[in-house]
Amino acid sequence: METFFSFLEKRVDDCSSLLCVGLDPHVSDLKEPTPASALDFCLTLVKQTAPYAAAFKPNAAFFEVFGAEGWTALKQVIEAINAESHRLGSRIPIILDAKRGDIASTADAYARSTFEILGVDCITLSPYLGQDSIEPFLGYPEKGVFLLCKTSNAGSGDLQDIKLPDGKPLYEHVARIAQTWNIQNNIGLVVGATHLDALKNVRATAPELWFLSPGVGAQGGELELALKSGLRRDGKGMLIPISRGISRAESPAKAAAEIRDQMVSIRHEIGRLRG
Amino acid sequence: METFFSFLEKRVDDCSSLLCVGLDPHVSDLKEPTPASALDFCLTLVKQTAPYAAAFKPNAAFFEVFGAEGWTALKQVIEAINAESHRLGSRIPIILDAKRGDIASTADAYARSTFEILGVDCITLSPYLGQDSIEPFLGYPEKGVFLLCKTSNAGSGDLQDIKLPDGKPLYEHVARIAQTWNIQNNIGLVVGATHLDALKNVRATAPELWFLSPGVGAQGGELELALKSGLRRDGKGMLIPISRGISRAESPAKAAAEIRDQMVSIRHEIGRLRG
Repeated sequence: METFFSFLEKRVDDCSSLLCVGLDPHVSDLKEPTPASALDFCLTLVKQTAPYAAAFKPNAAFFEVFGAEGWTALKQVIEAINAESHRLGSRIPIILDAKRGDIASTADAYARSTFEILGVDCITLSPYLGQDSIEPFLGYPEKGVFLLCKTSNAGSGDLQDIKLPDGKPLYEHVARIAQTWNIQNNIGLVVGATHLDALKNVRATAPELWFLSPGVGAQGGELELALKSGLRRDGKGMLIPISRGISRAESPAKAAAEIRDQMVSIRHEIGRLRG
Repeated sequence: METFFSFLEKRVDDCSSLLCVGLDPHVSDLKEPTPASALDFCLTLVKQTAPYAAAFKPNAAFFEVFGAEGWTALKQVIEAINAESHRLGSRIPIILDAKRGDIASTADAYARSTFEILGVDCITLSPYLGQDSIEPFLGYPEKGVFLLCKTSNAGSGDLQDIKLPDGKPLYEHVARIAQTWNIQNNIGLVVGATHLDALKNVRATAPELWFLSPGVGAQGGELELALKSGLRRDGKGMLIPISRGISRAESPAKAAAEIRDQMVSIRHEIGRLRG
């Protein structure tokens, strides 16, 4: 049976890319502060970058801020990505960046909302409420989740870096328990590209899991260092979400193509070094 | 200036109640699986229980599951609560149970969505991303947040009970740092009524903070034990959210009135014991 990660790997192979195009219609980046303008912004990005995108990642916050109309726009963006996938003949995974996390009966509703109503393929979730808060999502074996492990923001250390009695930070514990929860191979981890040591630690702790590693570009993370720190031995295992670095470029298509090409060359170089 | 918690305390005094009526339109509890039915369900609850409600707590998941129409229904529920407040002559706080948590620029959008677009008074947030993920919400000094500390579900122990080198569980650390973040007196804590020892520990750690303590009723928590474990010395400091225990009663109005009356008598008894 196809899992989310086998589907993602197929797409990564089809487009030779680890780029996850972030769809973050920040109000400040729109022509007008309207849901129609947010939709336009996303549709342009989708059309221009689809050939280079291993995945798309719409961020729920920037749609929610437009209320009900924002949710309608989000649904239209998802449909547009699916249409583009059809046109390309290679289905592109959609990851909803929502960082949800709630107790089981409520998590059921979030899982339905995400996987059935919106119809995306994967969601980001917080691990803070424990395994039973994740299970309703894992109950969709063909869908995926990325659990927050070590996030890219400066304040991530407040909780995530807390040292446990074994001297290891909390985020490494999250990486360990995530693997015990990963019975059906549908869990990945969010590990920010802004923390290279954390990337290396989590890769050592979880050699096989996929990472979603934001922070390259706007937040100061560097692509080459991030890939060197976090790629799996097979040269895959990392998705690099980039939003403003593409959406604010003069040509988003060109920016996405260049990032894809950089990835190809960095992965080639890493493969050569690793023999 | 009025803070969320001074506003809440005024309402608690006005209605002699610590009851937070949960608005959880579970699909299984609706006449039909439609947003219109979810709206009806909530409007009935609001009308019947408003006199006894120290606060209302709509849960975002049960609206999101209806997509854009769900968000429209949520907005209508909020308007109905405000109309009921006006009728009663005592404004009832609205807490959006959303458990959001994201990096700063995204958290900005969630804060706008919650406090400006939906226009609620308070939101539940996850602490996992650290202080900078909370700050955009704290930037609204008249609004409030309840940070997840020790949640009511069985799996809450997976992360929250992890012992730190000082022998204390992670959730106590969250209670401690939440106080250092609480410069403007607009942070409370979610501490499940299903964990009496945790309630006592967190009350000892954070003597002044308000708790939102779910789990009474459906999840097996007992009202009297919870209040005895978590009330502040002034007999306030805890909101007890109840959803199905009221919505599934033959008469939600009668159920809410009875819970309010139990609270009055338990608080009276506790006051007597504490001298």
